[in-house]
Amino acid sequence: MNTVEQYIEAINQGLAQIPYPESPDELYAPIRYELSLGGKRIRPLLTLMACEMFGVDYHQALAPALGIEIFHNFTLLHDDVMDNADVRRGKPTVHKVWNENAAVLSGDAMQILAYMQIMKAPDFYLREVLDVFSHTAMEICEGQQYDMEFEVRDDVSEDEYLNMIRLKTAVLLGGALKIGAIIAEAGATSAEKLYQFGVNIGLAFQLKDDYLDVYGDPVVFGKKIGGDILNNKKTYMLINALRLANGEDKEELLGWLNREDFDSKEKISCITALYNRLGIKELCENKMQEYYSKACECLRSIEVEDDNYKNPLLQLASDLMYREY
Amino acid sequence: MNTVEQYIEAINQGLAQIPYPESPDELYAPIRYELSLGGKRIRPLLTLMACEMFGVDYHQALAPALGIEIFHNFTLLHDDVMDNADVRRGKPTVHKVWNENAAVLSGDAMQILAYMQIMKAPDFYLREVLDVFSHTAMEICEGQQYDMEFEVRDDVSEDEYLNMIRLKTAVLLGGALKIGAIIAEAGATSAEKLYQFGVNIGLAFQLKDDYLDVYGDPVVFGKKIGGDILNNKKTYMLINALRLANGEDKEELLGWLNREDFDSKEKISCITALYNRLGIKELCENKMQEYYSKACECLRSIEVEDDNYKNPLLQLASDLMYREY
Repeated sequence: MNTVEQYIEAINQGLAQIPYPESPDELYAPIRYELSLGGKRIRPLLTLMACEMFGVDYHQALAPALGIEIFHNFTLLHDDVMDNADVRRGKPTVHKVWNENAAVLSGDAMQILAYMQIMKAPDFYLREVLDVFSHTAMEICEGQQYDMEFEVRDDVSEDEYLNMIRLKTAVLLGGALKIGAIIAEAGATSAEKLYQFGVNIGLAFQLKDDYLDVYGDPVVFGKKIGGDILNNKKTYMLINALRLANGEDKEELLGWLNREDFDSKEKISCITALYNRLGIKELCENKMQEYYSKACECLRSIEVEDDNYKNPLLQLASDLMYREY
Repeated sequence: MNTVEQYIEAINQGLAQIPYPESPDELYAPIRYELSLGGKRIRPLLTLMACEMFGVDYHQALAPALGIEIFHNFTLLHDDVMDNADVRRGKPTVHKVWNENAAVLSGDAMQILAYMQIMKAPDFYLREVLDVFSHTAMEICEGQQYDMEFEVRDDVSEDEYLNMIRLKTAVLLGGALKIGAIIAEAGATSAEKLYQFGVNIGLAFQLKDDYLDVYGDPVVFGKKIGGDILNNKKTYMLINALRLANGEDKEELLGWLNREDFDSKEKISCITALYNRLGIKELCENKMQEYYSKACECLRSIEVEDDNYKNPLLQLASDLMYREY
């Protein structure tokens, strides 16, 4: 069996070996830059592991796996334009290094490049793989749209939020797994279960992001703690705090959300204390656990030749669930 | 044989019947808006006519034809963001009606929607059609990149300019025709000749755009004459004027290009007079004629059951070549 390191090596090599025309450099350089920023490569990893779980050599699924990673990075590139974000993975964003037009256009080209890789799937699965990919890609656009709308709304419900992160984040994990299963000819039932495994892991994964912003260990986390709190970002934590707070707590919370001038440390510590009083920490932990259990149940119910074949995916899910950064 | 009106009716109906999810409306409304702005529908028309030229019912090619039109409109949408254009086909652009983020994201979704339509091609041709489409789409991004680069360069050569308009405009006309030919099982030689027909028509078409900005009849043209001149746009006309002007003419031309304060009418009439002195009008007419002749030659050399089947494409090419608006 391959190790995670071997898979990631294959993914990074594959990404580095994509041939680009020599010119126009200003179109292709931002693409190479975005793809070189690294990241955990979770999505292509899922595709490769799904393929091998059914006893099929992962090389069969490598090109589509790269396509999924390119698509994911395209969404980050355009999201950074829309959010006007300066930094991505510790480096300046594409529209900061080049400019906004270069970021928009290179992103457009990345989307085509993603399709070009996906299209390398063998004829027999081409249509099915493309259908999953396109459907998922459209859902991700929907998720990003909801995310932007929620920024200017203050009545976002928990269900709406969970649906948004399902679309924006979770379905691509599901889609990545399903594509691996299709290429491994795993059959519709297994492919669907693996998809659900991925969606549930994706939901837990995004909630963990929200959670670590408040309860992460600043030394291990890598990013500053409390960024979401300072930005009034409508995370799972804040949405539930708004729902559960009453009386003085509610007043205090709304006070912090509406204040323009404040001491960052004070705002973070007061809101964290409020979350603690309201039991938001446990609420989030329980919700993550719920998704994680559902995910594991989905994976468990899939029939494979040898149950040990599931270990890499189980391990990856556990790593994502219990990560500290 | 179908009339142009019948084809266009089928295209517009097809576009209107694309099913969109109900929400998020802010993602899908800009797409519907952009597609409802109209336009000549030349590209899907070419696909349908190409298909019928080889005796195959155009309905076989309708979905991919719609995909091509959606892709074309996506490029207009994102180009308008990059150019910060206020008006498209007499209506406010998407980023004016909504905002820039909506325009970027809806454009991204349109690209996926285009692929979804292209993917409706029958299994037998799916890969070939997708390859032509993706390759063409990437070239269009390259063309847009060159176009943006040329805006800030003042040493653009005629060859560079012709290559830019080939990529940005002409290859999609070629690709649209080739996809029609593939679906009609016309064979590689005919498909390639039809592609070359389209590219040459596309080049003539874009040169005609440049030409009409200077020599169009203001009553018939619909747009204001001289827009390119006022913006110092590096058209075929200006690039050649810069190349051919000497002495006082050169000085006068550079003077107009560098002046910030000027009377619009005066600038247009002086530069037009300069173009006339330098023989730019004939130069452009000859170049258009050259491409048009090449295009007709390509079409003529294709073998079909009945040469009359070529008439719709010949007529369309002639209409585009001799249009006054």
